[in-house]
Amino acid sequence: MTQADWIAVDWGTSNVRAWIFDERGEVRATASSDKGMGSLDPAGFEPALIELVGQHLPETGKVPVIACGMVGARQGWVEAPYATCPCPPPGLADAVSATAADPRLDVSILPGVKQSGPADVMRGEETQIGGFLATEPGFDGILCLPGTHTKWVHISAGEIVSFRTCMTGEIFALLSRQSVLRFAVAGDGWDAQSFQAAVGDAISSPQNLSAWLFGLRADSLLNETGVDVSKARLSGLLLGLELAGTKPYWLGREVVIVGAPSLSDLYVTALAEQGVSARFMDGGNLSLAGIRAARAQMESKT
Amino acid sequence: MTQADWIAVDWGTSNVRAWIFDERGEVRATASSDKGMGSLDPAGFEPALIELVGQHLPETGKVPVIACGMVGARQGWVEAPYATCPCPPPGLADAVSATAADPRLDVSILPGVKQSGPADVMRGEETQIGGFLATEPGFDGILCLPGTHTKWVHISAGEIVSFRTCMTGEIFALLSRQSVLRFAVAGDGWDAQSFQAAVGDAISSPQNLSAWLFGLRADSLLNETGVDVSKARLSGLLLGLELAGTKPYWLGREVVIVGAPSLSDLYVTALAEQGVSARFMDGGNLSLAGIRAARAQMESKT
Repeated sequence: MTQADWIAVDWGTSNVRAWIFDERGEVRATASSDKGMGSLDPAGFEPALIELVGQHLPETGKVPVIACGMVGARQGWVEAPYATCPCPPPGLADAVSATAADPRLDVSILPGVKQSGPADVMRGEETQIGGFLATEPGFDGILCLPGTHTKWVHISAGEIVSFRTCMTGEIFALLSRQSVLRFAVAGDGWDAQSFQAAVGDAISSPQNLSAWLFGLRADSLLNETGVDVSKARLSGLLLGLELAGTKPYWLGREVVIVGAPSLSDLYVTALAEQGVSARFMDGGNLSLAGIRAARAQMESKT
Repeated sequence: MTQADWIAVDWGTSNVRAWIFDERGEVRATASSDKGMGSLDPAGFEPALIELVGQHLPETGKVPVIACGMVGARQGWVEAPYATCPCPPPGLADAVSATAADPRLDVSILPGVKQSGPADVMRGEETQIGGFLATEPGFDGILCLPGTHTKWVHISAGEIVSFRTCMTGEIFALLSRQSVLRFAVAGDGWDAQSFQAAVGDAISSPQNLSAWLFGLRADSLLNETGVDVSKARLSGLLLGLELAGTKPYWLGREVVIVGAPSLSDLYVTALAEQGVSARFMDGGNLSLAGIRAARAQMESKT
């Protein structure tokens, strides 16, 4: 069994992932579970962590654990107060220690980033951004991190300059699973042309969103419109609304979409129609890269 | 026990209400339950009706039952195909008979109304409109019926000319109960000024909706904004989006808001800020008035 030299943890609302490093700085094991912040009370984090990585802890001696994400929220293990942008992605020097009963655990939690006006917050994405900047330190442009709450982030001179969060992903999930539209969009299939048309509709007339949404239901009832069309149109209307509102971010800038391939592809496709050729980067390993960068930042200071 | 001469039924998705008429045309009893269409399969409607009004049925002889609403949907007792607008609110001559095992029941279901382009549907509201037109037959203007799915209806020469449905109510319910915003809006209180400001924001910049919604969460976290402000702003943003999209309906027209007092008051207040002095009418008894009007239309034809 590998004994950990240190452990990186990405602890979100729904899931937790851990990477166990050996003395040579190599990842020797990984672990994950669904014990995200949302299902734990403050006393539940330490047992969840031990369940996840306990087999890699030595019998004696402290192991540094560096965690990012919702584990540092007010409802998390311990609150790691937000850094205020403009700022670089927070490093280990900005982290907050979490109390652990097990003497082998030395837990540091990286803070999120806030923006004062307009009020906005991120927790976890700042670490992905740190991972991105570790490979492209001179980047000057826009990072878009699609997800439940998509972040549009202006990056310049190694700093998070400003950002804007859109609830598009969460609204799509609620409407497609729990609203009257669920009958129209339940099932497989995707009509790419309907998606593009809907993006264009919402960008040019965002005020019609609420009526167009009910129109999906009516079209399904009256014209037996297929699931492939309705689902793509629902997604396109909501993404078009987001693009209409984030135009100051993406217009005339270098844009990189950082996320899961299928969702990111929708953003790349929709932006292409607006004349923006956005670059895609798989976000799968950026949290890990960001935690390594946060740790390295500390080492370079000492 | 009153024996029914005929029975009016307003059968919606969540609830059912019945009015029992005597020979002199007076309402002698009412009954209601939560056995709405949403909780019944087609075979469940007759038992639910008998449970509701069975005590008022005679031992022998047929009693006409006239019903409106989702009872006539495809998933209802029997489908009553939509009338196509422009058309007057459907009358008893347009109704569809539902089969009942009990020989005393003679059930007619009034159809809803559809619009071909843009595709739109209503079921139940057309009967309320019929009730409104029974008292104001010469009305020429806009009826707004706020609810889960708010209807904006252009009325002229006794007909439903066109209409537009907005999902505002359902989106508000989903966001305030099931999204990340539930933490910011859970509780009592209402800040009228924040409501008005949000309506204005959304009307002038509807494209910012998705970011402004997440801003409610961020403001709550960073500035400890109160529930009264956040809830009023959430409501105002969504209603403002609706008003931005329905401007062709309400701008420069006579507008009557027909619905429950508290929800209708939001519409009256928001429209007043836009220079439109909308009239309010309590919608509580309009379904009954509409069913009476649908029945009278039949009698005047025979």
